[in-house]
Order: sequence, then C-alpha cells, then structure tokens
Amino acid sequence: MADLDFIRKLIIPADTKIVFLVMDGVGGLPIEEGGPTELEAARTPNLDALAAKSICGFTTPISPGITPGSGPGHLAMFGYDPCRYVIGRGVLEALGIDFDLQPQDVAGRGNFCTVDAQGRVIDRRAGRISTEKCIELTALLRERIKLPGVELFIEPVKEHRFVLVLRGEGLAGDLTESDPQQLGVPPLPIRPVEDAPQPQASQKTADLVNQFVAQAQQVLQDQYPANMVLLRGLDKRPAIPSMKEVFGLRAAAIAVYPMYRGLAKLVGMAALPSGTSLADEFDALEKAWPDYDFFYLHFKYTDSRGEDGNFQAKVAMIEEFDSYIPRVMALKPDVVVVTGDHSTPSLLRAHSWHPVPTMLYSRYCRCDEARAYNERACARGALGNILAVDLMPLALANALRLTKFGA
Amino acid sequence: MADLDFIRKLIIPADTKIVFLVMDGVGGLPIEEGGPTELEAARTPNLDALAAKSICGFTTPISPGITPGSGPGHLAMFGYDPCRYVIGRGVLEALGIDFDLQPQDVAGRGNFCTVDAQGRVIDRRAGRISTEKCIELTALLRERIKLPGVELFIEPVKEHRFVLVLRGEGLAGDLTESDPQQLGVPPLPIRPVEDAPQPQASQKTADLVNQFVAQAQQVLQDQYPANMVLLRGLDKRPAIPSMKEVFGLRAAAIAVYPMYRGLAKLVGMAALPSGTSLADEFDALEKAWPDYDFFYLHFKYTDSRGEDGNFQAKVAMIEEFDSYIPRVMALKPDVVVVTGDHSTPSLLRAHSWHPVPTMLYSRYCRCDEARAYNERACARGALGNILAVDLMPLALANALRLTKFGA
Repeated sequence: MADLDFIRKLIIPADTKIVFLVMDGVGGLPIEEGGPTELEAARTPNLDALAAKSICGFTTPISPGITPGSGPGHLAMFGYDPCRYVIGRGVLEALGIDFDLQPQDVAGRGNFCTVDAQGRVIDRRAGRISTEKCIELTALLRERIKLPGVELFIEPVKEHRFVLVLRGEGLAGDLTESDPQQLGVPPLPIRPVEDAPQPQASQKTADLVNQFVAQAQQVLQDQYPANMVLLRGLDKRPAIPSMKEVFGLRAAAIAVYPMYRGLAKLVGMAALPSGTSLADEFDALEKAWPDYDFFYLHFKYTDSRGEDGNFQAKVAMIEEFDSYIPRVMALKPDVVVVTGDHSTPSLLRAHSWHPVPTMLYSRYCRCDEARAYNERACARGALGNILAVDLMPLALANALRLTKFGA
Repeated sequence: MADLDFIRKLIIPADTKIVFLVMDGVGGLPIEEGGPTELEAARTPNLDALAAKSICGFTTPISPGITPGSGPGHLAMFGYDPCRYVIGRGVLEALGIDFDLQPQDVAGRGNFCTVDAQGRVIDRRAGRISTEKCIELTALLRERIKLPGVELFIEPVKEHRFVLVLRGEGLAGDLTESDPQQLGVPPLPIRPVEDAPQPQASQKTADLVNQFVAQAQQVLQDQYPANMVLLRGLDKRPAIPSMKEVFGLRAAAIAVYPMYRGLAKLVGMAALPSGTSLADEFDALEKAWPDYDFFYLHFKYTDSRGEDGNFQAKVAMIEEFDSYIPRVMALKPDVVVVTGDHSTPSLLRAHSWHPVPTMLYSRYCRCDEARAYNERACARGALGNILAVDLMPLALANALRLTKFGA
C-alpha cells in the first residue's frame, strides 16, 4: 500500500476521466455446492464484453478474512487506508440521514431502551418502538434538554434508533459507550477512551454527554418502554484529505442512499442529485460528465437482496445494472472500474470477507484471458488479488495521472 | 515484505549459485486491442522451455499503479525497499558516467542554461549545446572555480548536462534545487530541505553550492547561450548495507551501461568488465562463474527500443536475449530468475506501472502450468503477483540459503 503523501507527490495533471461503477456487496457464493454464484447465474452480456477488454481479478477490502462495514469498504475503494481513517458509528448514522455534519461536531448513535425501577437495562431496544414514536420522543428530548455552551441535535433514524450531535467549541470524540451490552446492569457513564489524543476536550465532551443522559432519563421517565437512552460511537468525522488534495481529482458521487453520498463527501466528493432509480443515476452521470474527472456511481440493491438472502433477486439486480453499461461506454471514459465495496453472499445474508470481483478497463490495462465478470472468471485474470486501497493508484496510472517515482 | 534484518538472521551458507537475468523494461502491452505484447510476439524457444520448468508470475516493482525509475526498480529487484533507500538524481547521474562516488561525496545533476541580462532563466537547457561544448565548459569551470575546504569535481555528461561532486568533511545532502522549473524567473538559492536530518551540515553544503553557482555565473558570463547553471538532486549516496552483509552473497554485476554497474555497486556488488555486447556479457558470466554466488546480468536494449516506441525492434531484442539462455543453463545454476526492473511498453514509449513478467527456475521451484515467458502465460503461473522486493528472499530460499524462522 502506497501512502497518500507518496501518491500526492506523483500526481500530474491530465485530461482523462475515471468511472468507478460500484455494485454494493456484489461478490457472492454458490447457494449449492458446485453451483453458480449470483454473478455467474446472472446474464450479463455487457459486463462480460467489458471484461474481455479489461484486466480482471479481485480486491480485498481490508485483509484476508476481514469483513468490512460500509465505511471501511468505501474508504479502501476510494484509496484511503481504512484502518487509519476510522469512521465512528455516530458519524456513519448521521451521514445515513443526510445530516450536514461539520468537522467540529461530535456525533453518537443512540438507542431508546428500557430500564427497571433500579435503573438497570432490561431491553436494549425498548421493544423496537415504532419510527413514529421515535420521532415523537426525539422531538420531546429536543424541546426539553439544554446543555451549556453547545448546540444540540437529536434526530430520529428508524424504530428505536436516533442520532445525537453536539456542536460547539473545544469538543472531542474518542469516548466510551454507555451501552453495557448486557441486561440487568445500569448504563455505563461515558468517559474518554484510555489513549484519547485530546484527553481534556474528550473529558469536557463526556461530561456534557453524561448531562444529556441524565436529563434524558428525567424527560423519559413516564415513556415506558422507551424510558432511557444508550449511546455508542461518539466521535468526530475523521480528518481525511480530499480527493482533490491527494489525487488532484474533481470527484463526484452518484448515489441514491444518503449514507453513500455522505461517505463520498467525507473524502471531498461533490454529491450530485441522483434521483431514486438506476436510470436516474446514469442520467446524472451523463449530465455531469463534462464537469468532473472522477465519478463514483453506487448501486445499493445488490447488497440489499444479498442481505435478504434472496439469491434470485440479487441476480436480477446484477442483470439490471448490466443493462446500463453501454451508456457508460458511450461516454468514452478513459478508465472504468467495476467493483463492489465488499461481498454480500445471499448464502450468508450479510457482508462477508470474500475478495470482490473487480475489473479495470483502459487503453493501457493489459487485458487478460478473463472473458466474463464473475468469481470464476476473475480467478483467471491478470490483476490477481490486490488490496482495495491500491485500486485508486492503479486507476490513476491507467488515466496517465501519475508520474514516475525516482530517477 | 520481510525487512533486511529479518532476512539477515536467517541466512545460512550454501555452495549454490543464483543468476538474475534482467531484461530492462521487458514487460509490455499489445499495440492493438487483443493483439500480442512484445514478449508474446517474440519467438523465444529457450525462454519458453525454461518457463516450463519454472514458477511463473509477476513482480510489482513498488506497489500497484506506481511507475519506478531505474533506481527504485533495481533496488527492489535486489531485495532493498525502494521507498526506504532513495537515490538522488545527482547520484544516479554520477553512477551513469562511472564516477567513483565515495560515501561522503555530495553529487548534483547540473544543466547549463541561458539567463537574460536580469539573470532570469530563458532556456533551461541552453539550447541543448553540443557534448563537445559541454566538455569545454566543464573544463573551464574546473579550472576557474575554487571552494574553500572541499575538493570539486565537475564532469561532463551529454549535451547540456553535467555532474557536480563536492568531496570533503562534514557535508550533507537533503538540499533543494536551484532549477525554478519555469522560465522568466532567476535560479533559486539552494537550501536544506525542511526535514533535513543534519541541518547544519546541509546548510554548510548549501552555502558551498551557492558559492559554486555564483562563481560559475562569473566564469560563464560570455558563454551565451550557456551562461548559467542549474542544479538538481544534490545528495549523498544512500547508506545501503551490502548484499554480502545482508544476504551473505558474493555478488557480481554484468552490465554494459555505467549506470547499472553503479546501481549494483551501491549494494556492494563487484562490477565486472562486461564489454559492449550481449555476447560479451555472457562471456563475462562464464569467466567469473567460479568466483561469485550471485550474478546480475543486465540487458539495456529491451528498454531502449520500448522507449523508442519501436515494438518490432523490442521484439528483436527479446529474441536476441533468448538465444543466450542455453549458455546460462549449461553452467548448471541452482537458481535462475528472468525478470525486468519495470515494464516499458512500446505503446507508452516510457517506463510504466505494469507488473513485470517474472519466472524463477530451481530444482525446488514448484513449477506450474505456464509454458511460456510472457504476460498471458505468467497470468496462469503459480507465483502470482508478488512485490519485486520479495524476489530476492525467494531466490535465496530456492538456493537453500535461508533457514527456518522460529522453532
């Protein structure tokens, strides 16, 4: 893995365009021994034609055996070391509701929960209250709770989940969580983690969050089963240098779901209006084509159907995506990468550790004998199995945007 | 990547011989979509026969997407981390003219340039003066310029290029360059770089170099268009442990071009008299066979013809190299590696980032289904795609020169 300072020094300007087509969770597994994976079962004439002109192989999101969440999966794909730039749960949750998180904000993920008369947690999700109830209770908290010197945002997410954001001077993240992760014990007080880099600012923030929890308990005392809150993942946005700074790219994101637009904004991409369907996304790509050097186009439903465990529905999503490939190629991009942020085999109904089938097309890609975009074909490709974080330097090289290292 | 201290502790003696056959810039690309690469177009019966007995695959010189210069490309191939041991331009230029650079010397790459009456650079290469003129002007500078307490070497290279070497006590490199890299502005004063590890020694050296520049401007004032000098890459040789120290190898280099002999000398190889042709190089190999454990044999013209963009001429160079393989095998080497320091596709007319087709032959190499030495065959090899820096430990292992790590 080449570090970002190393890459930054090699960047040269070029009038070339790079497209990353990302089918979330695209990698899969056979549902029956010896059977096809989702990609192999899908009829994908356009992806296969592109594979014949591409270098094919696999990308490993983190390292062998490690299953990534969406945050690290995307950061790696965007060229950022996912173990160095860590996105807290609160930040990810805030991005997921399109909350405009500022660099100084501390965000946490909240659960409404149930406590008994002694204050011991007896249901960590408050019986999964309805989203309507969540909206009502967050409004109540917003109205009643005041903390000295900070602005407070309490935003509903879904069912028992909400986001807490503290905005003000001198705050810091790196805090422990209040969720005891077991029943029969009270919520834990929030503290700075042991090696917090700014212990005083973290202590100040912890004090404020503990005040929030105490006031919330008062406000919610008659709201059984949602009579208490638990907080996890209280942190700031990681300070990530932008794709413009490190790669010299004017980068744009096209994604229907807020969380993916948010992840792209963390690395400085412009989040384009992307509509609600795949057709809308490709319309957005065509419309913005002259204005950017790099496009990240995200398709959510391959992952969603994989998480449902619905093999055939995931196959259908792949086939739908395939039908849009000619519209990309008609734009005459210099580099096209087809990949995913991780695998989501229907068989596992979850993100997995499996390397992601990946192909890179360019005039200079040194194509190979792989003639289809799927797991078995990619195993015959010349790309081998590279780290996902190395994909961006490779795309930049193929776009003739990197100069030589050393004389 | 295993670091050198780790490897050093595992070295055991053995009476085995390793040969690295290096075709500079050997990796290529098809010139037409779907067509053969240079290696695939070449008729190489001897390399292919060796491939059938070898383990085949690719080596990546630095990391995916990164194009190496000759310095880092060679260091990686010799088993040294190319991002840790950095060779300055001045050092490389000095090696290229066979200058006997000492560990304490500071070497810089010089250009004669043209300045106007106000001292502003108007041609960074002084109209590419002839090499004869360069020899004349460097002699003039040598005669007239004196710096206190240091010995000065001013050596012509070619056209407008020369090498400056300062020899004396207490000098250091890590200096900025005087070349402003643009026209219409005066040359920049030389300073220590921001994070120079020996700032005082670097400052002292910068002061001396600035005196050199001031005196050169006086001496050259009537020599329009070569009426000024620019300096870049002022640095010492990197302190690199020798191949004898870290790998226990008596190592020899066979190379026609001075720069490659110089790179080999940086890692402690003996630079053997190598003549001027490939036949001379293989003669040298046979002659020195009893005296060394490791041989690096360098062939320049695959790279040269690639940089010319001459696909057919590069093919011819590969075919010429192929014809010498039986002479190597007749020596009964224990390990033979065929590789390049980087790829130089004719299509790009330059070094490139593409992994280098590489094969390793030994009695113990676990050979594979690759039956030819080229890009498509190597993609089917069992070596996979490894870092170039890992090739040396692999060769040592195959030469039974590495013991077990741990009990």
